[in-house]
Amino acid sequence: MSDILTRLAREILMVDENNASLIPEYDRILRQGLDSRLCDGDEPRDILIIGAGISGMLAGRILKDAGHRITILEANDDRVGGRVKTFHPQGGNSPFRDAAQYAEAGAMRIPDASVHPLVNTLMSVLDLDRLKQVFYNVDVARDDQTTKTYRTWLKANGLQARRCAYDDGTLPPEERSLGFPIPDSACTASHLLDLALEKPKSWVDQELPIEQQVEGWERVIQSYGGHSMGSYLREFFSDQGTTDAQAIIDYIGTLQNLTSRMALSFIQSFIETTYINDTVVYHELAGGNWQIPEALKASVAGDIVMDARVIEILWQCDKAQHRGRPGVCVRTINEPVVKRGTVRPNRIRMEREFTADLLICTIPFSALRFVRVTPAFSYWKHRAVIELHYDSATKVLLEFSERFWEWGPEEWVARLGDEYRGHRALGGGSITDSPNRFIYFPSHRVEGSSGGVVLASYTWADDANRWDSIPEDDRYGFALKGLTEIYGKGIKRFFTGAGKTESWMQNFYSFGEAAIFAPGQLTELHPHIATPEGPIHFAGEHTSLKHAWIEGAIESAIRVAIEVHGHVTLKQGEEG
Amino acid sequence: MSDILTRLAREILMVDENNASLIPEYDRILRQGLDSRLCDGDEPRDILIIGAGISGMLAGRILKDAGHRITILEANDDRVGGRVKTFHPQGGNSPFRDAAQYAEAGAMRIPDASVHPLVNTLMSVLDLDRLKQVFYNVDVARDDQTTKTYRTWLKANGLQARRCAYDDGTLPPEERSLGFPIPDSACTASHLLDLALEKPKSWVDQELPIEQQVEGWERVIQSYGGHSMGSYLREFFSDQGTTDAQAIIDYIGTLQNLTSRMALSFIQSFIETTYINDTVVYHELAGGNWQIPEALKASVAGDIVMDARVIEILWQCDKAQHRGRPGVCVRTINEPVVKRGTVRPNRIRMEREFTADLLICTIPFSALRFVRVTPAFSYWKHRAVIELHYDSATKVLLEFSERFWEWGPEEWVARLGDEYRGHRALGGGSITDSPNRFIYFPSHRVEGSSGGVVLASYTWADDANRWDSIPEDDRYGFALKGLTEIYGKGIKRFFTGAGKTESWMQNFYSFGEAAIFAPGQLTELHPHIATPEGPIHFAGEHTSLKHAWIEGAIESAIRVAIEVHGHVTLKQGEEG
Repeated sequence: MSDILTRLAREILMVDENNASLIPEYDRILRQGLDSRLCDGDEPRDILIIGAGISGMLAGRILKDAGHRITILEANDDRVGGRVKTFHPQGGNSPFRDAAQYAEAGAMRIPDASVHPLVNTLMSVLDLDRLKQVFYNVDVARDDQTTKTYRTWLKANGLQARRCAYDDGTLPPEERSLGFPIPDSACTASHLLDLALEKPKSWVDQELPIEQQVEGWERVIQSYGGHSMGSYLREFFSDQGTTDAQAIIDYIGTLQNLTSRMALSFIQSFIETTYINDTVVYHELAGGNWQIPEALKASVAGDIVMDARVIEILWQCDKAQHRGRPGVCVRTINEPVVKRGTVRPNRIRMEREFTADLLICTIPFSALRFVRVTPAFSYWKHRAVIELHYDSATKVLLEFSERFWEWGPEEWVARLGDEYRGHRALGGGSITDSPNRFIYFPSHRVEGSSGGVVLASYTWADDANRWDSIPEDDRYGFALKGLTEIYGKGIKRFFTGAGKTESWMQNFYSFGEAAIFAPGQLTELHPHIATPEGPIHFAGEHTSLKHAWIEGAIESAIRVAIEVHGHVTLKQGEEG
Repeated sequence: MSDILTRLAREILMVDENNASLIPEYDRILRQGLDSRLCDGDEPRDILIIGAGISGMLAGRILKDAGHRITILEANDDRVGGRVKTFHPQGGNSPFRDAAQYAEAGAMRIPDASVHPLVNTLMSVLDLDRLKQVFYNVDVARDDQTTKTYRTWLKANGLQARRCAYDDGTLPPEERSLGFPIPDSACTASHLLDLALEKPKSWVDQELPIEQQVEGWERVIQSYGGHSMGSYLREFFSDQGTTDAQAIIDYIGTLQNLTSRMALSFIQSFIETTYINDTVVYHELAGGNWQIPEALKASVAGDIVMDARVIEILWQCDKAQHRGRPGVCVRTINEPVVKRGTVRPNRIRMEREFTADLLICTIPFSALRFVRVTPAFSYWKHRAVIELHYDSATKVLLEFSERFWEWGPEEWVARLGDEYRGHRALGGGSITDSPNRFIYFPSHRVEGSSGGVVLASYTWADDANRWDSIPEDDRYGFALKGLTEIYGKGIKRFFTGAGKTESWMQNFYSFGEAAIFAPGQLTELHPHIATPEGPIHFAGEHTSLKHAWIEGAIESAIRVAIEVHGHVTLKQGEEG
């Protein structure tokens, strides 16, 4: 067990067995490729890759550069990129009224290199320009200043306040805790959460020598590996003698975006709050994040087979023979009839078989659950495929013809009348305990467009499941209603009638937003998730400890490329 | 807190403050109506009821019988019954190839009166005939004997065994634990679960005097109210010094249908395993359970307003005035355009307003989350509406032209060839760790039909979310594949091509299968769920402690009818 703790601690810190950072090597591989490449006379291997997301295409690109032959199988017939997906004009069809507009269906925030170095290196390598993202106050985006003025809204229990007034404690006493019946109404949710996490955070302080950080993470995992965020907070505040622990937890959950994580792994959220916090700067790509996978695709475009959903993986059997050696066989079909929301012409169902020396499987385990594997994987891999928890996440996006969120106070009154004097002025990303939960306005104007697309609701877990019960076309009305409860009914006149929505749990090829550990799964399942099964290797965000982040997909792609290339060259050495 | 524990313990046991059973009174009300009814000169009250499910229609029937005027608002335009729903021919459209066939989309099992007395009384009152249900061995249904021969299949980790051989321990040693790496391979999952639950079960033994049972339940709630089923089992088996606690939990979860409950409240599952076990006899209605709501509807048919989805509830304001007194106002719309799966003609959106003296809200809190309430409910009610956990549940049903599950060994060989000799003989409801998870064959033949409809997959929680990622039309192929992995590919030729599927999480008006407590929600939220807010009362399975059962809906309907009638007559007394 202590071996496992050490391994997990090092994986969180991205350090090797000597506690040296893996990042410089990974960064070099991203920029220059693998250190050793196949030479003349070396025999390249045939490598199949399932999934043309970030991890599949990047692993493919690195292995191809090293001299191997790769084939990437992708279930979609019209796009690559997996959960990096932008609603943007394609093939002449614009998702919004204004053809210049676009909006992120999936991954939308790219943290700075201080937190997520590899994704930033990748963007440099791919020559992609980043724009700074501003969630706190659109004024900043407008004049390109970086002061955070926090004029966003917070709304709960019928009370509505600006983030700045809430943070400064300048709200009237009866509104200071936004209606949550908690003991000390002067304390912000962020402060209470810091208080609760103080002890374990001190164990893993980034100022400590790396050896102590490794030990610190071991201790965190040992102490709280089986805890949910909710049970951790309940214990903490009960130990403090707080009588209203539950109200405090509701308060923190609502305002610190943890409601959806309360029943899930403490460690998962703890890792994120340790490294991802208010000081982190986020970026996005002008024109949409779809350009990241699109740029990656350029180097492997000829190696991707589209419209090929994998239905079976065979290994250790006659069918898996490849060029007279033991290998792996993968069977695919194209989709015969339907994809959610679009009926395709009833084509002939076509099954195909691919064989190769090695396989890299990058699809989510929730998707892999429906792929027949013969012979079955080892016990713990099988369990991980069955049980690894995937979260729901749902977005509802609405297009507006005017950027009311950029208006100054006078503009509100001029456009919508005197009732909008004062308190409705200025927009910003907001938090509410209504079904919408999280609302984000675009950080930047789109060239040549007077309007913009608002992320009117962004939800996870149970909050997202509520939206998933609503048919897609009916979600827009609910989302608009939620928006008007905060910004006033006047904004309705600027809604263009166009909206888009993405439920990642209802996405046939994604089977959920991302792997989010249930309590205990870090120690029980994670050590078995990335380990190869014979010629089958695994990559994707779920094999990393940066679930749901592009950085995790990139880490996993480089790790699997090293693994596969090392395996191959080792084998050649043995054979030669 | 101890007050709350006592209240919850009594609610579980359905006893009053003197620990006397509530069932005789509830039973009498079901049969004969409320003891006191309005007399000449008494003023009947106008009562609005949201939701024409079991609880709404039953509460309406009881209050109408007592002399009140009721109006029931139902969002569906084509059916009543809520989560009691049968796929059966309606308006000339048959869901299956054989128009005689039907299958349950929702509630399918009705436990015996020893466990669920009220639903059995209701069926007597409604004059509905029950058929005994047989999940264990279809031979029983065939010749109407009651011996359970347990020839159903269990399949996990690639090993497949008959339930009888598994229970008897007559499997070869290496198959005895179905591939789970657990210490003592001779022990069944059911035995291990009994062992783990022994202590708390002894506290609430039904043989104990009722006072001690109340104390026992208080102790269970106090000790384990914050536990998930997973954390309870992990603690128990770790305390036993078991090194492979997790494998044991996987084993119990897979075979005792608890995988989906591991992250959810211990108490919720504990209540069910205490009262619902292998000795319980289940029933169903010949022709489908839809006849229960249909029969209930007969007594309130003229009082139901169909196609009226509630969008707003107003109280304590001018709009809520009714006949010059403070009351309640409810606004509804008809659905303007779409319902999942069926596009309706684009009708004019019609808003309506209803006022009344009192309101009974029976819709799930997950649905109530999208109803605007002005003024907002009290803090804890508001939290319960936001946070009460609702589970996913998904069924995939396939129609077959032949009842292969009734065949004797010779018939399998005669129909499908020699490879089916022996081990594929006889069907029955089965458990697998493949995505299908739970498979149930019909207990009875349908008159005039040679085939039958198989519940090819019945799943909950994460297992159901996997199916919810798959578009409806694509689920049938996956479900059939899972079925053939157990019963052989030969059965494919009898699949008629017709199937039906119901995802309760994707059901617009249900917003989930049922309330299932997350850890801690029993003590934190439940005490606030059924309490009235001014003129607004609450009923439905989620207000009972028999979540997901018709019995819970009935208990809640009678409770709310007593509450509302008492409130009214008390008020009259005051006014008079």
